[in-house]
This record gives sequence, structure tokens and C-alpha cells, in this order.
Amino acid sequence: MMKIDVLTLFPEMFEGVLGHSILKKAAEKKAVHYNVINFREFSDNKHQTVDDYPYGGGAGMVLKPQPIFDAVKAINNNNEEKKSRVILLCPQGERLNQKKAEELAKEEHLIFICGHYEGYDERIREHLVTDEISIGDYVLTGGELGAMVIIDSVVRLLPEVLGNEESHQKDSFSTGLLEHPHYTRPADFRGMKVPEVIISGNHKNIEEWRAKESLRRTLTRRPDLLKEIDLTKEQVKWLEEIQKNIDN
Amino acid sequence: MMKIDVLTLFPEMFEGVLGHSILKKAAEKKAVHYNVINFREFSDNKHQTVDDYPYGGGAGMVLKPQPIFDAVKAINNNNEEKKSRVILLCPQGERLNQKKAEELAKEEHLIFICGHYEGYDERIREHLVTDEISIGDYVLTGGELGAMVIIDSVVRLLPEVLGNEESHQKDSFSTGLLEHPHYTRPADFRGMKVPEVIISGNHKNIEEWRAKESLRRTLTRRPDLLKEIDLTKEQVKWLEEIQKNIDN
Repeated sequence: MMKIDVLTLFPEMFEGVLGHSILKKAAEKKAVHYNVINFREFSDNKHQTVDDYPYGGGAGMVLKPQPIFDAVKAINNNNEEKKSRVILLCPQGERLNQKKAEELAKEEHLIFICGHYEGYDERIREHLVTDEISIGDYVLTGGELGAMVIIDSVVRLLPEVLGNEESHQKDSFSTGLLEHPHYTRPADFRGMKVPEVIISGNHKNIEEWRAKESLRRTLTRRPDLLKEIDLTKEQVKWLEEIQKNIDN
Repeated sequence: MMKIDVLTLFPEMFEGVLGHSILKKAAEKKAVHYNVINFREFSDNKHQTVDDYPYGGGAGMVLKPQPIFDAVKAINNNNEEKKSRVILLCPQGERLNQKKAEELAKEEHLIFICGHYEGYDERIREHLVTDEISIGDYVLTGGELGAMVIIDSVVRLLPEVLGNEESHQKDSFSTGLLEHPHYTRPADFRGMKVPEVIISGNHKNIEEWRAKESLRRTLTRRPDLLKEIDLTKEQVKWLEEIQKNIDN
């Protein structure tokens, strides 16, 4: 069973996300155990402060090393040799991608440190943290949403977490191409019709249409993805046709 | 006041995130109003189904157009001319970045559509949605976390939402470089010391150290960011020094 600890000043933010859908089911199946901890409880200061003014001046507050070091130590039962992955959410971190999620899914114990508009004392990064991760190039209020995103991307990869239905999305991503369009009933919804081919019943034509639409969507939206996969001869030919149609 | 509507099958997932910290304060200050709606309520089917099998076969279910079209129509009070941004969360979408968040922060009304491991009927994309957005290249269980991430990135940009302390992070991001290291007391934490310069009291030296560390961190972690900004002559010189030190 994977163990996930989260250090945050806003533990209640996690309840809705960890308490529903796949993340909840994963805990019920004992594939994962979540523990969300307010690291303010570990402050040795009588006012339970967790931040202080920055050395050298400047705006903003900085998270002190003591509460976070001691919280991690307590999580690891004072065992300094414990090999947990300690993940700091921050804009300067390595960007999360599917490969990183797969790597983290192999671990037994993940600890997430979420700051909340304060900076982190650099000694936390240097001496405590094993991974600094960013979920994207945008500014968020704190690390909490980033931790939830990583937890979701990782936990759904654990064995036995996903049923057949849910695992569909994973499979489709693994081709390296964007998905083709999907349609369901009715064939005519308020004048908006589905393509003829998809209701033709001719499976060979349907497969070819889907394969081409998947290529077309990748070419027009994410051409960078095409460089990373080995295309078949047929796919190369189709891509040329699609490109020609776009140019005309 | 910005109006944000979210269509989801898991409305409870949003409570923790919208009910705390900046997103809660923004609603209290009447900078934004959130409305999270279960679109299953709009199904005209007696079993309240929202998905169906895909035309042409294949694994997975597809979200039907009817409940989502009718939910958006009801949100807009049956006013078909209403100019809302209708945002679909999906892996094929445009990737969220800070510029996109700034663009969305200028809108009066955002509607988010969150699927949950099902695909979307293509007619939803073609005829209802104005923006398809992905928060990054990783697979999540549903669009809910993506919607929360976009909402956080957008709402914190609304006028009067952030106090002085919280706005610090925004400012530092706007230089185009990663932030320099931060330190706070104690100067010696269990043998881990802060750099001498930062406690020297010499502000000119502190500023130069910070400027160089910001460049060093950007060079080593995100060299792509350096191409996007105009460096001063001094910064170019410092970068050459830093590069020389790395090479040796």
C-alpha cells in the first residue's frame, strides 16, 4: 500500500478531492493511505508561527525550516534513514508529466510539502526535499492544488485502482497522439449530425476515419507530439494528405 | 463581479477548494460568485443518464450532448446571445499558462465543463465550447482538478482579491526569471547556515547576490525562459560568469 502524507496549512482543502471518486475508492481498496497534516502543529514557537521575515529584506514572508523539518521527521517516526520521496510544490520545479507520474507511482511513500503564498527557506529545498515539482507555468495561491493534481495522476496508476471503464483514457493517451472525436446518440441532436461514416457499421472505414482524425487533431493542436513518436508508413501518407487539405 | 459556473458530476469535490483561503475570501469580497452544478439534474432521460455507448464501438462511455447543452442554456437564462466563455477541460486542449489566466480574468462570466473519465460528444466541442484547456501533459481522473486550477489562477488576478503579502509571488513571477533563494531565521538551523552575504546588512551586495542567483536558477532549471526576455548587459555578463563556473 502506498502511503501519502501532505503537509499544509489548509488541510480542509483536501477533503473534497480525496473524499470522492477514484481517490476515495483507491483508499477504500487499501491501495493508498492519505494523511493530511497541518504543519503548524509542529511549530516549537509559543505562538505556533510557521513563517518569518526574509533575511536581507523584501516583500513576503518565508516558511521557517523548523516546523517542516520536524513534521517530516515525525512522519518518518524519527527514522532519519527512511527513504521517502519528499516533494515540494513550487513554480521553479521540474514540470509534471506522465513519465514523472509513472515514476512516482512506483514509490512506497510520498510526502508533499505545500507552501501558501510564502516562500520556502532554502534549507528546506537543499536538505529535506528530494523533488521540486511544478504542475505548469501559471501562478497558483499555494501548493495544495498542485499536490492534489500529482496525487490524482499517481494514484490512478496504482495496480487495481482503475476499473475497465476508467482505464480507457489511459490507454488512449499511450499512443502518443490526441484522441479522435467521439459521438453517441442521438445521430441528429437539434440539427447537429454525427459524421455518416461513424454510423455506417463498416468497421474498417470507422477505424481508418478515427486513425486519420487522431492524426489531424494532433497535427493541428499539438504538432510537437508528432516528433516524439515513430509513425507508420500509412500514418506518414495520411499526414501528407491532411497537410495538403489544410494548405488548400 | 465575475460569475463562475461549474458543470460536474462531483460537485462536492469543489467544496474544500472554493471554501478556503483566497478563493473563499474573493467570494466574501464579492469579487466572484461560484455556482457548482451537477449536470445530471438536466438529463431529460427518466434514469437521469448523462452518458451512452460510443457510435462505432470502442471502450469507454461518451457524455451525451443533451444534459450539457441544456445546463449551459439554463445558466444563461435561455439567452442564446449570451457571451459567456464556455471552457472544456480536456487533454487535447490549449495548455494553460499565465497569459491565458490573465485573458480569462478579464471576462465577466466563465462556465467550466468537467467530464469524468468519459469522452465528450464532439458536438459539445464544436457548437457549445469556446475554449478547450489542458493544465498539463498528464492524465487526471476528470476535469474537476483542472477547473479548480484555472479558477485559482484567474480569481487571484481579479482586482482587490489579493492583499499586499499575497501579491508578492505574482510580482516576482513577472520578471520572467525564477525566484532567488529565500532565507529566514535562524541563521544557523541545526548546522545548516544561511549564506554570509544575506546577513551582511550590505544591501547592494544582497541585491547583486539575489539577481545572480535568480539567473543561475533560471539557467540551470529553465533555460527556455531566458530566450523569452530581454537581458541587460549586466545580466548577460553575469550569465557568462555563471556558465563558466558550471563548466569548470
